[in-house]
Amino acid sequence: MDRALMLAARSPRADPNPRVGCVLVDDDGRIVGEGWHHGAGTPHAEVEALSGAGPDAAGATAYVTLEPCNHHGRTGPCAEALLRAGVRRVVYAQADPNPPASGGAATLAAGGVEVLGGVRAAEAALLNEAWTFSVTHGRPFVTWKVAGTLDGRTAAADGTSAWITGQPARLDVHRLRSRCGAIVVGTGTVLADDPRLTVRRPDGTEAPRQPVRVVVGRRPIPADARVLSPDASTLLLADDPAGVLARLQEAGVRHVWLEGGATLAAAFVTAGLVDEIVAYLAPVLVGSGSPLVGDLGVATLADAHRYALVDVRRLGDDVRLTLRPLPDLSEPQPNSGKE
Amino acid sequence: MDRALMLAARSPRADPNPRVGCVLVDDDGRIVGEGWHHGAGTPHAEVEALSGAGPDAAGATAYVTLEPCNHHGRTGPCAEALLRAGVRRVVYAQADPNPPASGGAATLAAGGVEVLGGVRAAEAALLNEAWTFSVTHGRPFVTWKVAGTLDGRTAAADGTSAWITGQPARLDVHRLRSRCGAIVVGTGTVLADDPRLTVRRPDGTEAPRQPVRVVVGRRPIPADARVLSPDASTLLLADDPAGVLARLQEAGVRHVWLEGGATLAAAFVTAGLVDEIVAYLAPVLVGSGSPLVGDLGVATLADAHRYALVDVRRLGDDVRLTLRPLPDLSEPQPNSGKE
Repeated sequence: MDRALMLAARSPRADPNPRVGCVLVDDDGRIVGEGWHHGAGTPHAEVEALSGAGPDAAGATAYVTLEPCNHHGRTGPCAEALLRAGVRRVVYAQADPNPPASGGAATLAAGGVEVLGGVRAAEAALLNEAWTFSVTHGRPFVTWKVAGTLDGRTAAADGTSAWITGQPARLDVHRLRSRCGAIVVGTGTVLADDPRLTVRRPDGTEAPRQPVRVVVGRRPIPADARVLSPDASTLLLADDPAGVLARLQEAGVRHVWLEGGATLAAAFVTAGLVDEIVAYLAPVLVGSGSPLVGDLGVATLADAHRYALVDVRRLGDDVRLTLRPLPDLSEPQPNSGKE
Repeated sequence: MDRALMLAARSPRADPNPRVGCVLVDDDGRIVGEGWHHGAGTPHAEVEALSGAGPDAAGATAYVTLEPCNHHGRTGPCAEALLRAGVRRVVYAQADPNPPASGGAATLAAGGVEVLGGVRAAEAALLNEAWTFSVTHGRPFVTWKVAGTLDGRTAAADGTSAWITGQPARLDVHRLRSRCGAIVVGTGTVLADDPRLTVRRPDGTEAPRQPVRVVVGRRPIPADARVLSPDASTLLLADDPAGVLARLQEAGVRHVWLEGGATLAAAFVTAGLVDEIVAYLAPVLVGSGSPLVGDLGVATLADAHRYALVDVRRLGDDVRLTLRPLPDLSEPQPNSGKE
């Protein structure tokens, strides 16, 4: 399973499909086939491993990081493929949380295969946190990224905002952006900053795989805005936050990277649609300028949005804080890897 | 010197005088006397060590964390006392940066004592950072403490501010407050929050030694304000920041703990009179309310006040950031422990 998890980690993060690794081992403990999922439209990890193993798959044990799928997607159900190949035993980590695909374990067991699930399930679920969230909640996982000063400003009074944070923080943004399926900003940000919204490598060149760029709002944006460059796949949406997420879920986006500005961020926070905050704070005081977040309709401190601080990291001269919503103790907690 | 440094650390921090430790060792390496400074008006460390050693001081080596003083204060110059006692050798750490007291090493050497200075000087200087700053700059060292939300608010729209941060952060505030000679707030803070401005121990009781409480501003404050409680030594000042610091320097305050609010903090920041910022940030968004700091007259980001991030610490659910001014590279750097 160690090796299967390692293979799964090679799968792309910013993909509609989960990251999965599979290793086929014969009775002598020899690896006869292995595979990982290379992204939507390519064979599943199990299929890749089976095709590598050929006839050696018969009688082998399959170690898979996710319960083999049971549905007819673009590649046929993996449970059936494992059965057909004569695999004798299947050990999987995370149970498939996706209703249309689940039931693979039952199909295998009914076909006479010995099945063991839940082995290192937590590690496997962590590889697919956004995907698991998305298939169980019916919407993408939302990370709001914000960079500001110690006194909570994202720009000075004249609108200048480059650069509040230093290079290590900016590189970190591109690294985390690259893991997401879409980058979302408001029209205000496009009008103010004309961002490219691309993932760039440390050398400044654009990464080969780019998240979908999404601009939300009703204000028109200039035709020569950089976000509309001809090679870009850019969505212009005028929906509310829930509507934006519904559209992106349909488009196969599992993880949204929300970059603001203050008005759009406030709309997502108020709607309870921020699942993670990644805040880069610079040791700077500006005293006036754009606020980190717009009005949240909070009149008194008891009604403020309070989060759990899950990570604190120094990046060069700046600090990165990662926040997650506090568990809602008033509701029963679903028994999933995510909650 | 190890032991002398350890003894010096027993001296009170929030005192007009430096923290000093002294150990007298005879030719056989036996400790014949030791002492530390217990605070203004009590004997200096050297005098305490000499009085413990009695005649055994003759021919001994004195290890002192600060160059023995040369001036006639309330206790007479230590350099002379060491000479009179027949000490043969003096090893000290930090050179005395205080002009009226310095020259002790020269006096000792002129008296035939073997003198060695600068041994573990940096460690010794760190014990007396605020004092060293104060005697070299002619004003107290100023720490601005602020507690706010991630979005840079110190209170919600209705003025509620208790409690933004959690108990570990609040205990830390009392611990750091206790090291200072004065706690300074503006009249606005007294009117809004009616603080006691005392150092309290973890059990909630007031510590025996309290910093001077200082309220700055021209607005009248109610006679029943808690900061004016009968047992308190409270100063009401209507000066500008430099004037406030001059008054406190005269009063023997070496380290000022500035607690705000936003207007007073902005006045100190703008005047270049903040030497350290201790910011407690809670993982909370409030979206509106009082800003962390008032208008700094900064129009564009290039003119923002930029600091060095010297420490990041997690305290319970909150984060404490410690900032110091960036060295001013346009001026020659004095060769002191502080710069």
